[in-house]
Parts: sequence; C-alpha cells; structure tokens
Amino acid sequence: MTKGKQSTLKAFFEPRSVAVFGSMREPQGEGLTVIRNMLNFGFAGSIYPISRSAIQASGLKAYPAVSNVKGLIDLAIVVTPPPTVLSIIDECGRKGIKAAIVATEGFAETGPDGVRLQRQLVETARRYGMRLLGPNTLGVLSTDYGLVTAPYSMDHNKPLSGGISYCSQTGFLTFGVHPIKDIGYPISKICDFGNKCDVNELDILPYLADDPTTKVICMHLEDVKDGQRFIEVARQAVARKPVLILKPGRSEAGARAASSHTGSLAGDDQVYENAFKQAGVIRLKTWREFWDIPKALTLQPLPKGNRIAIVTATGGAGVMLSDAAAEFNLVPATFSAATRSQLGRLSPRLGNNPVDVGPMMSVRESPFSVYEDVVPAILSDPNVDCLTAVCHLGPPIVKVFTGLAPTISRISKPVTILGYGINLSEMQESVRQMEALGLPTYLDLETAVKALEVGAAYSRIRARLAEDAR
Amino acid sequence: MTKGKQSTLKAFFEPRSVAVFGSMREPQGEGLTVIRNMLNFGFAGSIYPISRSAIQASGLKAYPAVSNVKGLIDLAIVVTPPPTVLSIIDECGRKGIKAAIVATEGFAETGPDGVRLQRQLVETARRYGMRLLGPNTLGVLSTDYGLVTAPYSMDHNKPLSGGISYCSQTGFLTFGVHPIKDIGYPISKICDFGNKCDVNELDILPYLADDPTTKVICMHLEDVKDGQRFIEVARQAVARKPVLILKPGRSEAGARAASSHTGSLAGDDQVYENAFKQAGVIRLKTWREFWDIPKALTLQPLPKGNRIAIVTATGGAGVMLSDAAAEFNLVPATFSAATRSQLGRLSPRLGNNPVDVGPMMSVRESPFSVYEDVVPAILSDPNVDCLTAVCHLGPPIVKVFTGLAPTISRISKPVTILGYGINLSEMQESVRQMEALGLPTYLDLETAVKALEVGAAYSRIRARLAEDAR
Repeated sequence: MTKGKQSTLKAFFEPRSVAVFGSMREPQGEGLTVIRNMLNFGFAGSIYPISRSAIQASGLKAYPAVSNVKGLIDLAIVVTPPPTVLSIIDECGRKGIKAAIVATEGFAETGPDGVRLQRQLVETARRYGMRLLGPNTLGVLSTDYGLVTAPYSMDHNKPLSGGISYCSQTGFLTFGVHPIKDIGYPISKICDFGNKCDVNELDILPYLADDPTTKVICMHLEDVKDGQRFIEVARQAVARKPVLILKPGRSEAGARAASSHTGSLAGDDQVYENAFKQAGVIRLKTWREFWDIPKALTLQPLPKGNRIAIVTATGGAGVMLSDAAAEFNLVPATFSAATRSQLGRLSPRLGNNPVDVGPMMSVRESPFSVYEDVVPAILSDPNVDCLTAVCHLGPPIVKVFTGLAPTISRISKPVTILGYGINLSEMQESVRQMEALGLPTYLDLETAVKALEVGAAYSRIRARLAEDAR
Repeated sequence: MTKGKQSTLKAFFEPRSVAVFGSMREPQGEGLTVIRNMLNFGFAGSIYPISRSAIQASGLKAYPAVSNVKGLIDLAIVVTPPPTVLSIIDECGRKGIKAAIVATEGFAETGPDGVRLQRQLVETARRYGMRLLGPNTLGVLSTDYGLVTAPYSMDHNKPLSGGISYCSQTGFLTFGVHPIKDIGYPISKICDFGNKCDVNELDILPYLADDPTTKVICMHLEDVKDGQRFIEVARQAVARKPVLILKPGRSEAGARAASSHTGSLAGDDQVYENAFKQAGVIRLKTWREFWDIPKALTLQPLPKGNRIAIVTATGGAGVMLSDAAAEFNLVPATFSAATRSQLGRLSPRLGNNPVDVGPMMSVRESPFSVYEDVVPAILSDPNVDCLTAVCHLGPPIVKVFTGLAPTISRISKPVTILGYGINLSEMQESVRQMEALGLPTYLDLETAVKALEVGAAYSRIRARLAEDAR
C-alpha cells in the first residue's frame, strides 16, 4: 500500500468536490437522485452535475462536460448506461480526477462482453492513475461528510454518525436494504465493493485503520483478492481496531452461489479460516451478528477477560444466557466475598451469578431501582470482566440507566443489555435511547452475550499481536 | 394419562366459569386486574370475584366466599399472599373445583419454608382430586376462549388467534415479556408451568395433541419430571403434531443456573438429547428459534423432502442463504429441464438456483411482477420441495403476494419469505400483512431457511414413527 494510493482512497470517502454523471431529466433521473441525496445529507463540498442537455440540476449549475468545470474534482460518480461509461472515465482521466465510483450495472456480472468492457474500464483508469470503485455498486456513504452515492432515494435513511465502518460485496449488506437509520446504527463509513474491479479490501483496510472516526471495521467478503497480502494488511489493521468479517461460501452450495453471484472463486473455506486466524480477524457467522455485534465494540470498552456477570429480572433468561455464555467461551464470574456480602445485605437470596433481581423488584415501590444498587456493585468486583443486564424496556429502565451511565462508564468494563417488553415500538424506542447512553441493547438473547465474547476475543488477539511484535 | 385427568386439563384452558381470588381494592389490585383482563379479552363464561370486603368488582357481583356461589366453577385463579393460599385451595376443594392456578410467588423458589408450604398445597389439592398449575406462574392464555390469568395488565397484548400453543418454565417465554400482539404471533394456548408442583409437560402434551386448534406445540423446559413417561407421552404427541422444545442447561453453567432458578436437577444434557431423539421431539437451540420457527409450521404445509429453491432480488442474500441451507441439511434443488427453459425464456441469465431476479427487476416497469412469473414456475417443479423468497418489503410486494397466495396454497409446498427494507415500521407492517396471507416472513436471514428445515425434519420423523407403528 503506497502513500499515494492511500490518499486516493481519501477521495472516495472525504471528497471536497464531486462530479455526477447520470440522467438529470425526470425527477427519478439517477444522476438527479444522487445529487438530491447528497444535498439532503448535507454534503459540504462542491457538486458538479455533468449533463449535455440540462442547464441546472436540483438548483445547481450543470456542465455539458467535466472539462468545462474550472475547479479541481476529487471524485466522479457515474450512473450512466454501460456503453457510455468508458468515454466518461477517459474524460475524467483527462480532467485529472483520481477517483471514480461506477454505479452502473452490466459489466463482469453479465457475461463475457461485460468482462471485456470492465477490463477496458480498468485499463483506461490505470492510464490516468485513477482508482475505480465498482462497477455495479451503490458506492459509498460517509456520515461526517454528508456523502452518499446510491442512485436511489435515501430520504428516509440518513444514518446516525458513529464508529462503525463497514464494507460489503453485496448491496444486501449495504445501505439500501437495512433500516440503519431506524435501528440507530452508528455509522462512520460504508462501502459497497460491487464487482471489485480495482478498489478492494486491501485498499480499504489501511484507510479505515487510519480513519480517526472508525472504531470497528466490519466486512462482508465473497472472496479475497490476494491471500498473502490480505493477511499482512489485515494484521496491521487488527493491531489497531477490531476487524470482523462475514465470509459466506462456507458450504459447497454457498461457494457455488458466490461464484455465480460475483464470479468469486471462493476456494477451500479452510484456507480462509486459517488466513483470518493468522491475521487476527474475527469471523462472523450470521447476518444478525453482522448487524448486532459491532455496536457493542464501538459503544463500550473492551473486556480485560472473559468472566461474565448476569443481572436479570427473570430467572429463565439467566439460565439461557448462561448457556449462551458457555457456548461463546465466557465463564460465569465468581463474586468476591465483599460483593457477596453487599448483595446479601440487599436480599438474602442474592449472591449467586446469574443475579436474579426479579423477586426484589416485586417487593419494591420503584422496582427498577434494584439495578441502581446491584449493577455498580457487581461491575466493580475485580472478579468481573463484563456484564449483561436483562431489563424490561420502557421509560422507567431508560431513566434508571440514564442515572447509571456515568458510573458504568467510569468503571470502564463493557455492559450489554438484553431487553424485553410487550410493546414493540416502545421497545425499539428504548433501544435507541439506551444506545444513545452508550449501552448496546439487544432484543435477541444470544447476541447480547456473543457481543461481549467478541470483545474478549479481540482483547486476546491484540495482546497476542503486541506480544508477537516485541 | 387417564381420561379423567385429561378432562381436568380442559378446565384450565376452556373453563365455563372461573372464581378469582386476589385483591379487589385499588385499581391495581391483582384480582381486579385478572378480571379486567378477562373482560377485555372477551371471556364468555361466568366470572366470580371472591372477596370478603368488596361487593362488586369491575361491575361483577363479588362473593365473600366461593361457597356462596351457586353455580359450578371449573377453575380457580388465586393471586393472594402466600399464607392465605392453603385455606383457599381447601375452600375450593370443598366447593368441588377441580382445577386451580396459583399465581402467587413465594413457594418452593424461596427456600425450605416455601418448599414445605408448596408440599401442603399439593397434598390438600390431591385430597379433593384437584389439579394445580403453579405456584409462581402467570397461568394460561387461551385465545379462542378469551381466557387470560396473568395478574398484570394485558391491555396492549391480546394476541392473534392461531395455531401455535406454547408452554414455558419461565415467565420470560410466556405472554408478558414478548410483543406477541405486535409481531402478530398466531396463538391458540399458552401455559406458564411456574414451579410445576403438579400440572406439567406430561399433562399438557396429550391435551395439546388432542386440541383441534393447536397445530404446533412449542415448549421451554428446564427439566423433565419423568424421563421414561415423557418419551412415551411425547412420542404420542409427535405422531400427531410437531413438538419443538427449547431445553436450556446444555452447559454446566446453564445447568447450575437452572437449578437455582427452578430447583431443576437438570442432569446430563446428553440424556435429554437422547430422550428427545427417541420421542421425535425437535430441539430448538436459541431464543429466536423459539419465537420464529413455529409460525412456519402453523402457516405452511410440511415439505415432502429437503430440496430448497431460493428466489432472490439480491445475489448476496442468495449466497448466504445457500450457506445456511447447507448448514441445516437442506440441499439446493436442481431444476428440471422444463423449469430451466421456462426461466430461460424470461431471461437468459436465469436457470440456476439461487434464482437471482435482481437484474430482471431493474429493467421491468413493475419490478415486483418478476415474482409472479418465477415463484409459481419454480414451486411447481417436481424437483423442488420448498422455497425461500427474498423480497423488499412494502406495499408492492404485499400486493404481488396477495395475488400469488392462492397459487402457492394450491401447489401445497412450504414457502418462507426473507424480507428487507429501510423503513422498520413499514417492514413490520408488511410482515404482518404477508403472514395474514399465510406466508411466514422473517427479518432474520438464517431463520428463514431453518424454519423449512424443521418442517423437513418433522416430515422425516413422522414417516419414521408411522413406519415403527406398522
């Protein structure tokens, strides 16, 4: 990874100016949609609509060709029909643009003709030292820059700004197919690799490892372009931030499907498994993990060990969480004598882990105040590395944790919440409020502890890498 | 299981008259709450509030003692403080009541004194031939009878009437801690075993197997009272309906937690695993499976084999679903020549499984009409046993499947939907609408295929049991 390459990557996520190529005619014109999205997201740089026919687009002056633009352009976004793309890339090269996103479909994914056209695209871009993302991509999203390049309306889906950056080799795991705004998913950067003709994981990993707003890197990959190089690059990223990868194609059927989807030659899954291990990459197994695990890593500190405490308003959940914790290599914390006697003073039935606060709640005037007594006491115990609290979601618990959040933050051990309730929209509102307090909140039981295990695993990996580096 | 016992069980779920013991004083009085819930749910039988002080409760005449009631009483619901329960059970016994739900907490779960009190309760009930559910239980819910016995307000949570019946040994998996109404979970009966002092899985299984509205039986058990008897009883139920059981305590930590939660002596997990296998019970592993799998079994027919077709608007989802299918022992269907040529006429790029309809959608005026052409063609293929369709949720897809539903139903092979979108509340509304059409719809990728696998597994089990019976 040369310095030059890395600064080019910056142009994809932090451009000061963009040229947009795509239909500006009817309201649904794809070029117009890209521009409208960026204006809605608050893009602060210059936007240059390029159109032979339009004089203006969304109130911005349009230019017949990119050569008519006087200023420098960092990034080109291309959403024109396949036969026009090659000459546009050439035009951009002559203008000195060093980064282009080709959203257009109809290249290598369609057959031999598309493969040829895609190869010509890459050759043209190389001649000008230009980097290409795509083709067949939704492009990028960068919350802090108000940048979004998807050629369909993003009106409803401007996400929360936060520490998760993620890349994907399928639109299915990027910004158009998941309610990232409604679930309050805290995002720094998103990148859809599309056909991955040029920019790939080898470029993105160092860029995101350097990026100060990215706290955790999450990737979906159907293949890896250069295994040996990947291990080196990923290892360097892992030394700085957790890198989580969902790599399908574990099964023969999955590998075959991947091959017909992106032309990936997936190869033996064991090879990937070994490469990820060597690099210190944490492999995710399910779609739910992809969406749910990263938020715990960005919102909470890492656990120093794998001893978990469970505080629950319902004994049954404690049992199931204990099973899940064991499956994920977490061990139940044995409380210190001091903690046991402190809990014992609250109720003679407390002291064991899981801590079932249900009976105490049913005799208190303010049932939820139990958490105020129990959570800080347990979290401070030197025998406890992390904690999952099972809570009935709603305004009372949000109020209690609003008070507890500074204490939890001071103790600096990770906490996850498993939430339950009977009113779905009220539950979802509570999840957003709890996460605004920095407390990752799950409606899925097993994930609440799995998220802590991934943190513990990353702590071990980082220690190992530091050891290796000495 | 004697006939007599079974008809007593009927009194718990289908009572014609109930007596309610519990505070009728302030609006939050637990007895009053039970009565209000039942009136809200539309209970059609007689309700007799029993109170020494109140003259009426929620507009109903109250009685100082159950002996003052002239008519027959099928079921007593008791939510009074622990010291009062024993004499109430005695009073009910003398009145000839054959079924009582003791919601009250403070028995065996609290220590030796509670154990003693609970034993006396059982002895008293036995003397009168009365069956007891609980103590420490939320009791039962029976949608078709408007029966609900939880002593807290159920205003928001009257569930949809449907084919799932489920029992649990924790309140966490019963009706007060999951948004069963909001998610449109189709319920026939619910039962919380509580401390399981008398009525247990051995009673419920035959009752639910006989119950005409129950299509699938789903249970959470922390222990099984009589292993040998359980295998016989469960096997008889399995011969008629799928029985799914979530049994925590797989790990040592989980088993220890279960023991302190319900006093369950969980025993070696392998013993349970073997018993479930012998009985043909399908073991669920996660909380999500408990809630998500049964709806596919109640809404859709069983697959005759394990050959799955995947139709997807996004190639990336097809790859991940292929992996999940392989993990769950489903094999990708190889389409017949006729199907392949039919698909080929729609687009030269179709014909493989997963069927990626994304590219076709982007060139059609009504993109979603693709499903109308593709789904019936594939589902009719004799080489296909079941199908998962990946769809962008919203009014257009609901419209398409409203048209397709009769065809899917006629072909009589199970279909699940994996839904995605960017607007969470619109997605959840679509889920409810699709399920009202009989199409189980998931927002969780892996579960959409796991649900089909459970159906295929049950088909195999039923065939094996029929074989054994010959």
